[in-house]
Amino acid sequence: MTNKTTKRLSGIAASPGIAIAKAFRLRQDHYVPADGAIADPVAEAERFREAAAVAKAELEAIRAMTERKIGAAKAEIFEAHLLLLEDPDLIDAILEKIGQESMNAEYALHETAQGFIDLLLSMDNELLRARAADVRDVSGRLMSRLRGVSYAAVSAISEPCVLVAEDLTPSDTAQLNPDYVLGFVTEIGSRTSHSAIMARSLEIPAIVGAGTEAADIETGTMIIMDAEQGSVIVEPSDEELTAYQARKVEYDRRKDELRKLMDQPTVSQDGHRVELAANIGSVEDLQKVLANGAEGIGLFRTEFLYMGRAALPSEEEQFHVYKHVLERMEGKPVVIRTLDIGGDKELPYMKLPAESNPFLGLRAIRLCLDRQELFRTQLRALLRASVHGQLKIMFPMIAVAAELREAKRLLREEKEKLLREGVPVSESIEVGIMVEVPAAALAADMLAKEADFFSIGTNDLIQYTMAADRMNENVAYLYQPCHPSILRLIRMVIQAAAKEGKWVGMCGEMAGDQTAIPVLLGMGLHEFSMSASSILPARALIKRLSQRDWAAHTEQILSMDSQESIHAFVNQQTRSDFA
Amino acid sequence: MTNKTTKRLSGIAASPGIAIAKAFRLRQDHYVPADGAIADPVAEAERFREAAAVAKAELEAIRAMTERKIGAAKAEIFEAHLLLLEDPDLIDAILEKIGQESMNAEYALHETAQGFIDLLLSMDNELLRARAADVRDVSGRLMSRLRGVSYAAVSAISEPCVLVAEDLTPSDTAQLNPDYVLGFVTEIGSRTSHSAIMARSLEIPAIVGAGTEAADIETGTMIIMDAEQGSVIVEPSDEELTAYQARKVEYDRRKDELRKLMDQPTVSQDGHRVELAANIGSVEDLQKVLANGAEGIGLFRTEFLYMGRAALPSEEEQFHVYKHVLERMEGKPVVIRTLDIGGDKELPYMKLPAESNPFLGLRAIRLCLDRQELFRTQLRALLRASVHGQLKIMFPMIAVAAELREAKRLLREEKEKLLREGVPVSESIEVGIMVEVPAAALAADMLAKEADFFSIGTNDLIQYTMAADRMNENVAYLYQPCHPSILRLIRMVIQAAAKEGKWVGMCGEMAGDQTAIPVLLGMGLHEFSMSASSILPARALIKRLSQRDWAAHTEQILSMDSQESIHAFVNQQTRSDFA
Repeated sequence: MTNKTTKRLSGIAASPGIAIAKAFRLRQDHYVPADGAIADPVAEAERFREAAAVAKAELEAIRAMTERKIGAAKAEIFEAHLLLLEDPDLIDAILEKIGQESMNAEYALHETAQGFIDLLLSMDNELLRARAADVRDVSGRLMSRLRGVSYAAVSAISEPCVLVAEDLTPSDTAQLNPDYVLGFVTEIGSRTSHSAIMARSLEIPAIVGAGTEAADIETGTMIIMDAEQGSVIVEPSDEELTAYQARKVEYDRRKDELRKLMDQPTVSQDGHRVELAANIGSVEDLQKVLANGAEGIGLFRTEFLYMGRAALPSEEEQFHVYKHVLERMEGKPVVIRTLDIGGDKELPYMKLPAESNPFLGLRAIRLCLDRQELFRTQLRALLRASVHGQLKIMFPMIAVAAELREAKRLLREEKEKLLREGVPVSESIEVGIMVEVPAAALAADMLAKEADFFSIGTNDLIQYTMAADRMNENVAYLYQPCHPSILRLIRMVIQAAAKEGKWVGMCGEMAGDQTAIPVLLGMGLHEFSMSASSILPARALIKRLSQRDWAAHTEQILSMDSQESIHAFVNQQTRSDFA
Repeated sequence: MTNKTTKRLSGIAASPGIAIAKAFRLRQDHYVPADGAIADPVAEAERFREAAAVAKAELEAIRAMTERKIGAAKAEIFEAHLLLLEDPDLIDAILEKIGQESMNAEYALHETAQGFIDLLLSMDNELLRARAADVRDVSGRLMSRLRGVSYAAVSAISEPCVLVAEDLTPSDTAQLNPDYVLGFVTEIGSRTSHSAIMARSLEIPAIVGAGTEAADIETGTMIIMDAEQGSVIVEPSDEELTAYQARKVEYDRRKDELRKLMDQPTVSQDGHRVELAANIGSVEDLQKVLANGAEGIGLFRTEFLYMGRAALPSEEEQFHVYKHVLERMEGKPVVIRTLDIGGDKELPYMKLPAESNPFLGLRAIRLCLDRQELFRTQLRALLRASVHGQLKIMFPMIAVAAELREAKRLLREEKEKLLREGVPVSESIEVGIMVEVPAAALAADMLAKEADFFSIGTNDLIQYTMAADRMNENVAYLYQPCHPSILRLIRMVIQAAAKEGKWVGMCGEMAGDQTAIPVLLGMGLHEFSMSASSILPARALIKRLSQRDWAAHTEQILSMDSQESIHAFVNQQTRSDFA
């Protein structure tokens, strides 16, 4: 028996995994310099310039390392930091304070950076507010250089540990060495904070937002972090340590097993082949797509190109992004969805009308057909990129055939224009639609004559079929992917497409759901597109299922009167199949 | 050739019909009394009290006449006026000004009433603002009495005319004699203003909101008012007069013909019987229901009981309303829908959560199952009323069977409680659901085992199936009742119900649509519930249709790929049928 007092914290599971190690406490100083005048402003300015030059060299090194270790997209944040080091609003303001007010460099830096940070934090725009962390990171680095102390000792860690910190800056996270830093826990932060996103890229387990109690964890304290559950056990008992070590072995074994499926095709136990693709929301997600054995991209959401900026993206800018993704996927299919803005996604610079029910409003293809110039620009960028890979274009929110016809007409016009201009365009672009409006599912037989493929967008299809906003917790009980009404619509779509010889994918969350997969496989779904991390577990599952058997269960499943009965049936059936 | 200058005005067609007659200009004075002191305040107060007593007697006579001519519900407005005449805030304030400030009665009345009106008009609540018109009406009447002039000469009209006025007060409208006042035109007002509602009850053609140009119309000017189009022709040419006289003859002939269908059953040309019922939103609509040959009430919306007030209605209050409607319908079926609040209908006193997409939120049965006390009160009132007629209870917005089961469980519990208390409850109440959520239509076979009937609520069903807010003009092009996807859902519901031997009605606007009726008849819809004014035209249409022929057209119609093709087919087919 030891004298340890076990403490339990909980936070947000930001990157999955289990880590068991001693804590390394990162002490981030909140150094506030004194407001002293200096005698030689010229020398002081020179001292500041030297510090800035060293900081710049450091950042360039970190950027190069990040690009190598994590990829170019993630390294872009350090481009931004380097630009800050050259920003006259920041640097000239500091030099002015030194030169004209004889202020010491540390205080001039502190004053100017803090003013910047306060201004950014007061903004209405979330992206500008998030920039405050960058200014804090860069000015912290400059301050360390000025004071001759090392800036955050993360890169110095040289034995296995769980890193514990108030928060991690982008440069902290980029410098983590996954050989030693087995995971990290921060007091603040959210699933979408920069450090959380980078942890997922590095595949380091991370728990963020664990609260101020985490501040008491000192270097050397034993820690179990369970980033599946979001729980941290400080000073665990020996029994807990033993239990978690066993869990970690099992977790690692499972992970290794899945890794073996990386480059394998997705074939059911009885030899039926399907395609497992990934949903991505930006270029930065590509790394994870490739690292998880995706056979293609089933949904590339293009909204990120339009969001968090002051004006529409140019054709050229879009072209480069589409080309990049197609090239990275090396000939594997890439389904790019045209702009789905409106609904819950707003673009302030487009001045869209306020709507009482935005999910039932002017969004996606409706908006694009209304603002044709915007749409034509995207179509041209897509057409130009088409020669760089296997592009499939998908229109969102098609409700009636007339919308599809009009969208195809505009695509045809732009293609003809490009060809007349001598710009090459692929002749084998498939053009399909997202089936997410119930009306489209109900008329799938007609739409299948005019679309090359369908991709069922279950997130919206369920919300409309149930008439329940998927963001509204008061009606969350109606969000039932395996309700017979939803499954019947899905089957209707698959059967209608089959009659016309067209393929059907699914790009809603349901496609990666382990309980839904057997049913969907049985109904004959061809492509399952999901978040990259679900692909290998889905492949493992499908390899154990018999497509024929599940096809034989379909009628029985569709006659059950609730999601609960269907779930129970699937679970019982898979248990007995795998027994 | 005459020297007339024809002028055309347009306004809001508030009550249908055509009237051709000379204008009668109602001059409503805007008398503003002078602020003179009087010598004998006691005598002045007495003079005011006498005027108030005469006004009271007048109002009581008008109320009695309205009750006789239009019905008790419409007469209630004069109850409110009588109460105003006893309201101390108004009357005592006037008497105080006379007694303490020696103010003359006219000015005291003017000052006090105007203060009242200004206060009401400044309110945020629309219902309170509307009360300003009542105060204006009552104080105008009082002023006329004080001044010894007659208050609005409407009742004195004794030859055929079209009445032209700035606006009509409730008491003006109630006193109109339809034998002489063939129609009225007002400068201000909306379709929902009191005079517009009363005009529809009295079946007098009315055009409101014709603008200030109508102020120039003098007594004796020839007028054609076309309250089908909302147009007024002042000083028409002889050709126009002749043309409109012919149109009026045709209009009246058609109206007479429809009137002959009043008490006839609705039977198709080949002997297939269906039921034509009315949708009502309040007790006041009953008059029109009875006057238009409805075979029942297919949708009684109960929201009016809950709206425009400060607290929930009591069980007792609801019971009396339900009992009254059941009794007035004399054993004909009455489908009462339980509360459908939420969505676009708010109740400030219930403090419902604000929602991003209220049409996809906590509304109707979802809200009732969440706030069970509210729901149980309504169920008890319905159960108690059930012995007074043929009650059918309908739950709105059912999406999944579990909701229907839970609602039926609560109904059963309340019924058992009442029976234990010795309160009689009918044993033959049918319990059905509105089919307006696509999920319910898709699982209609399962729901038909647990519901006694379905009523298809097309307004919502279309909006959800198309994912298009029916109030949002930007997506209005998607509101397509005859789109094949919608018709397929409807057929699915009718077929599923038929298998279980249950009847299916429809209570959305589509049920009264002359283009949709042949298709719905062919698909086997049993009950069509619509606004009362559509019933006779629908009956006339159905009498000319062959149910068998339209049933034979169903497959062909459902395989057409757009609403336009279906509309064209129906129109062409009916033309050739009726040729």
